[in-house]
Amino acid sequence: MSKFLIDKYASLEAYTPGEQPRDMKYVKLNTNESPYPASKGVVESVSGEEVARLNLYPDPECKALKEKLAEYYGVGYENVFVSNGSDEILSFAFMAFCSEQTGAVFPNISYGFYKVYGDLYNVDYTQAKLKSDFTIDVNDYINVGRTVVIANPNAPTGLSISPEDIGRICESNPDNVVLIDEAYVDFGGKSCVGLIDKYDNLLVVRTYSKSRSMAGARLGFAFASKGIIDDLNRIKYSTNPYNINRLTLIAGAAAIDDCEYYKECCKKIVGTREYAKARLASLGFEYLDSDANFIFAKNSRIDGGRLYRELKKNGVLVRHFSDPLISDYVRITVGTREQMDTLFEKTEKILSEV
Amino acid sequence: MSKFLIDKYASLEAYTPGEQPRDMKYVKLNTNESPYPASKGVVESVSGEEVARLNLYPDPECKALKEKLAEYYGVGYENVFVSNGSDEILSFAFMAFCSEQTGAVFPNISYGFYKVYGDLYNVDYTQAKLKSDFTIDVNDYINVGRTVVIANPNAPTGLSISPEDIGRICESNPDNVVLIDEAYVDFGGKSCVGLIDKYDNLLVVRTYSKSRSMAGARLGFAFASKGIIDDLNRIKYSTNPYNINRLTLIAGAAAIDDCEYYKECCKKIVGTREYAKARLASLGFEYLDSDANFIFAKNSRIDGGRLYRELKKNGVLVRHFSDPLISDYVRITVGTREQMDTLFEKTEKILSEV
Repeated sequence: MSKFLIDKYASLEAYTPGEQPRDMKYVKLNTNESPYPASKGVVESVSGEEVARLNLYPDPECKALKEKLAEYYGVGYENVFVSNGSDEILSFAFMAFCSEQTGAVFPNISYGFYKVYGDLYNVDYTQAKLKSDFTIDVNDYINVGRTVVIANPNAPTGLSISPEDIGRICESNPDNVVLIDEAYVDFGGKSCVGLIDKYDNLLVVRTYSKSRSMAGARLGFAFASKGIIDDLNRIKYSTNPYNINRLTLIAGAAAIDDCEYYKECCKKIVGTREYAKARLASLGFEYLDSDANFIFAKNSRIDGGRLYRELKKNGVLVRHFSDPLISDYVRITVGTREQMDTLFEKTEKILSEV
Repeated sequence: MSKFLIDKYASLEAYTPGEQPRDMKYVKLNTNESPYPASKGVVESVSGEEVARLNLYPDPECKALKEKLAEYYGVGYENVFVSNGSDEILSFAFMAFCSEQTGAVFPNISYGFYKVYGDLYNVDYTQAKLKSDFTIDVNDYINVGRTVVIANPNAPTGLSISPEDIGRICESNPDNVVLIDEAYVDFGGKSCVGLIDKYDNLLVVRTYSKSRSMAGARLGFAFASKGIIDDLNRIKYSTNPYNINRLTLIAGAAAIDDCEYYKECCKKIVGTREYAKARLASLGFEYLDSDANFIFAKNSRIDGGRLYRELKKNGVLVRHFSDPLISDYVRITVGTREQMDTLFEKTEKILSEV
């Protein structure tokens, strides 16, 4: 920290992303990436001709991409927002819709970044406790009169709430935004995108990083009433109007045209997830019944931190969180069948030595 | 605006980027892009193999790119920051180093975004008047005890101050950051990068958008003391850790290897600029003696707004600013010789009809 940093950020604790090893030598099951490459259409869309044209700015309105998304998801053009990864939408939404006065509420176990945004933007936030089975208690969000932020499926648990419950939350907090972060919805959750016409306070956030194999392209999108989208645009045009580069805009549109490929990838991941659950059970693990592309699991024979470290020594990266509420667990991204078999082989070996 | 937007942004006026027509039918001299394509090495670096690998997150530390930049510019690795376009660095710097208490000062005629950031982050800012010849009065920034923000060369004037003057400003404001925005420095200005070891309060901001023909890739970078870089990283990791996508990281590193190509492009642009100045003079224009890749010019026979509109009708886009202090002028990006000849041909025709 320099002496120039303004006081309010002096104690700010930034988010710690999962390890991103630069050497590729690990079986990487720690940051919920897709194990499958970008589609053929995406690869072809980023042609040499398009790269040469990088001398020109991208379209700040992102019109072509937003039109594709509006058509695919059956919403109006004015109901779509796109951003440099979904973290950027979350950041803009905390900035626009949360404050010391408005407040916010989100689960005490969820995406760790919500708390960072809360601290960064000086938001009066509360963290609602999950039930002992790690499910969200919907009643904690009814009539709260605060901005509501829920990941659905939740992370790192993988557990979902229903669109009906989300409707109840929206209805009971008509003066507050209800942000539903659907980063992992394509692996078995139920989207609430269809509710944005009914609830003008509902903001649904999505990403290309998981089900569309494009974490490296940085592309998030969101659906909401026109008013909320206008507010997000106001923040965008006051911070970084050209927030999405030309190649990501092109690749993002091409990915929509290749939706069959991505659906097939999701289907494979769901199949591997169910296979992995069975293998975990046979190895004595307890796990939550995930709807996402990861499994949150623990084994009474080994602490989560130790399992993480031993797996890393054996060339397999999973994610461990030091929060005492969940430090027994590891979060395992669902990779390919072969990657999971390596994980199980190494885990079996580790367990035999404890 | 929705009813959910928190009060402090209710009157925020966002930045208006220059027009980005989606149809390519214009001779585009309005947003200071390079008229030359990305280099061969950049095009080759974005291979199909790299695009397919978009399923993986980028390196949030951006290590490979920062190492290249550190080596090329002769600074330490810990003195480099990279971002999603230089606007993002400006936004982070206003957030980190300016407040109601710290305050900020920048020229009254400069990059229009400084004022937007000032408003967005609730900064007590003042705008120091340029002299009547549009030069910066360095004395306005000596001993001000505020965060100083100066574009050098300044935009839209194209006029520069010397590294010696910047040194004096740094020395007289030891408790405040001095941000020098060198977006246009490669077209004839003198960089103050060499001063970062001497002044721990100096922050030098650069971009790939102009001299490196990569406006479409969104890549900015900055040099400063380790403390300032650490502060910028704290903001980055609290808003959007994966702020630069994989392909831009790769292309940005490849562009450094192709520095001879870009130097050649800059040389051509400087040559065309001097040619354009002479042509403008012969058409009765007055212009400032720009060090940048644009020329700020006026003609007593036609108002700036009207010239902009007439040129647009004739298929040529230039930039006009409605601020009464500069509304007589248009800002003309230096394109290729052919593009400039089209501009002059159309201008001659327009002038003959007024």
